[in-house]
Amino acid sequence: MNYKMMFRFYALVCLLEGVFLIPSLCIGIADGTQRTALGFAVTMMLSWGLALLFKLLSRNAPKDFFAREGFICVASAWILLSLIGALPFFFSGEIPNYIDALFETVSGFTTTGASILGNVEALSRACLYWRSFSHWIGGMGVLVFLLALVPAGGKNEGFTMHLFRAESPGPEVGKLVPKLRQTAAMLYITYLVLTVLNFIFLMLGDIPVFEAVCTTLGTAGTGGFGIKNDSMASYSPYIQNVTTVFMLLFGVNFSCYYLLILRQFRAVFRDEELRMYLCIVVASVLLITWNISSMYSSVGEALRHAAFQVASIISTSGFSSTDFDLWPSFSKGILMLLMVTGACAGSTCGGMKCARVLLLLKGLRRNISNLLHPQRVQSVRVNDRVIDEKVMANTNAYLSAYVVILIGSFLLISLDEFSIATNFTAVLTCFNNVGPGFEGVGPMMNFGAFSYFSKLILIFDMLAGRLEIFPMLLLFSGSLPHKRRCVARTA
Amino acid sequence: MNYKMMFRFYALVCLLEGVFLIPSLCIGIADGTQRTALGFAVTMMLSWGLALLFKLLSRNAPKDFFAREGFICVASAWILLSLIGALPFFFSGEIPNYIDALFETVSGFTTTGASILGNVEALSRACLYWRSFSHWIGGMGVLVFLLALVPAGGKNEGFTMHLFRAESPGPEVGKLVPKLRQTAAMLYITYLVLTVLNFIFLMLGDIPVFEAVCTTLGTAGTGGFGIKNDSMASYSPYIQNVTTVFMLLFGVNFSCYYLLILRQFRAVFRDEELRMYLCIVVASVLLITWNISSMYSSVGEALRHAAFQVASIISTSGFSSTDFDLWPSFSKGILMLLMVTGACAGSTCGGMKCARVLLLLKGLRRNISNLLHPQRVQSVRVNDRVIDEKVMANTNAYLSAYVVILIGSFLLISLDEFSIATNFTAVLTCFNNVGPGFEGVGPMMNFGAFSYFSKLILIFDMLAGRLEIFPMLLLFSGSLPHKRRCVARTA
Repeated sequence: MNYKMMFRFYALVCLLEGVFLIPSLCIGIADGTQRTALGFAVTMMLSWGLALLFKLLSRNAPKDFFAREGFICVASAWILLSLIGALPFFFSGEIPNYIDALFETVSGFTTTGASILGNVEALSRACLYWRSFSHWIGGMGVLVFLLALVPAGGKNEGFTMHLFRAESPGPEVGKLVPKLRQTAAMLYITYLVLTVLNFIFLMLGDIPVFEAVCTTLGTAGTGGFGIKNDSMASYSPYIQNVTTVFMLLFGVNFSCYYLLILRQFRAVFRDEELRMYLCIVVASVLLITWNISSMYSSVGEALRHAAFQVASIISTSGFSSTDFDLWPSFSKGILMLLMVTGACAGSTCGGMKCARVLLLLKGLRRNISNLLHPQRVQSVRVNDRVIDEKVMANTNAYLSAYVVILIGSFLLISLDEFSIATNFTAVLTCFNNVGPGFEGVGPMMNFGAFSYFSKLILIFDMLAGRLEIFPMLLLFSGSLPHKRRCVARTA
Repeated sequence: MNYKMMFRFYALVCLLEGVFLIPSLCIGIADGTQRTALGFAVTMMLSWGLALLFKLLSRNAPKDFFAREGFICVASAWILLSLIGALPFFFSGEIPNYIDALFETVSGFTTTGASILGNVEALSRACLYWRSFSHWIGGMGVLVFLLALVPAGGKNEGFTMHLFRAESPGPEVGKLVPKLRQTAAMLYITYLVLTVLNFIFLMLGDIPVFEAVCTTLGTAGTGGFGIKNDSMASYSPYIQNVTTVFMLLFGVNFSCYYLLILRQFRAVFRDEELRMYLCIVVASVLLITWNISSMYSSVGEALRHAAFQVASIISTSGFSSTDFDLWPSFSKGILMLLMVTGACAGSTCGGMKCARVLLLLKGLRRNISNLLHPQRVQSVRVNDRVIDEKVMANTNAYLSAYVVILIGSFLLISLDEFSIATNFTAVLTCFNNVGPGFEGVGPMMNFGAFSYFSKLILIFDMLAGRLEIFPMLLLFSGSLPHKRRCVARTA
């Protein structure tokens, strides 16, 4: 393992985290919440101190860096980020237990939005901002952000590509433009522009600036931490509808926006993943509206709530405009399905991603056809492009790993004696980075009642979900064969 | 489609079904339950009438027969078998609704054991026998039975191999001996010997002959229809323990017994699937015993119930010695996991089969390793034998199809407004041919409350589970590409 190269990277992560803490520190000072401000200040100092330490340890790092190290580096960097990010909650005393604070922070960075807090409104504004901001940071990926900033020419290209590959969501990683750094920059600019647009539209709805900022950050990262105890139920229909639209927009593959700027409308329109995503959204909204219409005073209201919840769950945000745990089983079933699929690859959302579901379905079709015609060689095509068999194998492995982790986590948190639906949807919602589940972890409930052991399991699930399983699996499975070192190709 | 060849096959199936009805008819006459006896007699006549009709329609059938037709032939034969098999319940008036009767029959033939009856003890002995006998028939497969009887030399070899492949459980179909017919005969002899042994051991426990026969048939087929309302809770510990052992024995790959007869102990001992099966059983029993020990008067009693339920669920029988829906969540979680894995391939049980789980886990490990070392070619090995990539692809396709059907069925039966756990475990238990689930379909409940629509969905799931998905998928997906016909190889 090239530890020195990893330390160099950790140094950057710590430096950046200290910078990210500045806004919360300012809010803490402005609000006069002394202990909270102090908590942020101490964490910031600690973060920069660690950065210095890692920098010193990373001297004379060798240049060669392997795929395995890329995965482990990303997984450990996310854990480091969370361990530090949880300190302000702990130091300020607003979340007195460190495991709880860590759960909240991991839930933030992984854009899950599951909370252990029963009374969110009791938090100081500094902490509220930090919660929501962590969504925004985690949404696009801290490492992608680093790539956009750090000069990574020539020899570092392999290093950065491995990191990018390990952190980016979706079955395939494509570079929009030849230079990786430019791709990362382009992604972040899109992210920034959409975020600002979201904020402007929210402000038109007559909502306090602070609330608009937090809601925007939570929407952009498709996170879902609310700043009110009832999530978004008490906001006006206008605010809810704006959020619905932007949750859906943040669920679209960002490369589609890039193509739109290049005026390649045809390519966007014909994108199979985007079509699938939109079809799922429309079908789910219609079915749920039909199913719940008798529960609301008008079909319009049912439609608004159905659209909000569908957008919230498929984009894996997890905001709620109503207590959908009270909805009929059929609607809840659809929402569970949306938790698993998630929105598009290359967006800020979690879940399996439509692209992966598409590949699995096409792979299934191909294999059934193979069963009948064993001699015929058939390839899977998406957007008229033949999919590499390695990508297919990887997608299948992803499904296997997904099922294994889902079942394993479910079993382990079952030790807590909650109902089957509570346990199952708790794992499902954390693993897919959604936020709320059903019954004991429904939209009006929280994760505070779980044991610390279960919380650690769910923390693992959230990280595994956000990093798409393999980095976390590799980090925790030292026994895998890696005797022969191969210099991995850089895409 | 070679319909004539299929009709010839249907004729045999109908002829055989008429024969299978004879014992029940005799019991009906002996007991003097007139209407029931009449119901069996009429069904028998109808069955033989249909056999004659199909025979007439199948004249001059062409010899060529393709893989696709093999799958469709098997799926439709099973449906035909069930449609006829449901008639005695309906004619006798003991299950007045035909859909309910069909559910009960499909549940019997697929060795599921899920019942729509609240009061089983109200049935006549003729119907009770028919329910249990259908488990025994379905356990090894009617078609395998046919193969053991019917001369299938030379040109028919392709036809029979396709059928055998489509009906046999497990990821790979191997012939024990070169001739397919001998393989089938050998399987049936093993089945018969084990069944007789089971009966003898039960009789030593002082239990009425009729009850011993029905229990044996249900155990051998790993079906699980009880003849008492409390399943096996009121039987003595001896009877329960004998059943535990035989449920586990019927979950072992039958080729292991063949190897034992050949004195190849080493091969049996080193069989990876068998080892995995035994490890899962031992681990599950120990964990559950630990988890439930406080609920029973002694650890011994807890161990007995744990072992019975683990054997019952992993062999997908579905008998119960106690109401395990009252057990803690952790134990229920383990049982849910066992429902999915099932026992060994090549046995009478349902579920995914340990062999398939083993292949999936090994495939996952291989793919993670590939992720790190893209240049290295790695193959998956089981029992020191390289597994064909086609088998791997098939196993992956199986998992995809499994997940798709599971989710789809769950959504559709959610329209009935039961709880999430009820709906989910109802699908899980039917699809894996287990029998009981949790909450609304727990071991002391039944499926009678579901709507007819949901019952039809669950009937589909039971058949899809028993026939390992693809035959049913092909039957219901006429749109799949099959323009170019390839003469499939005969293994």
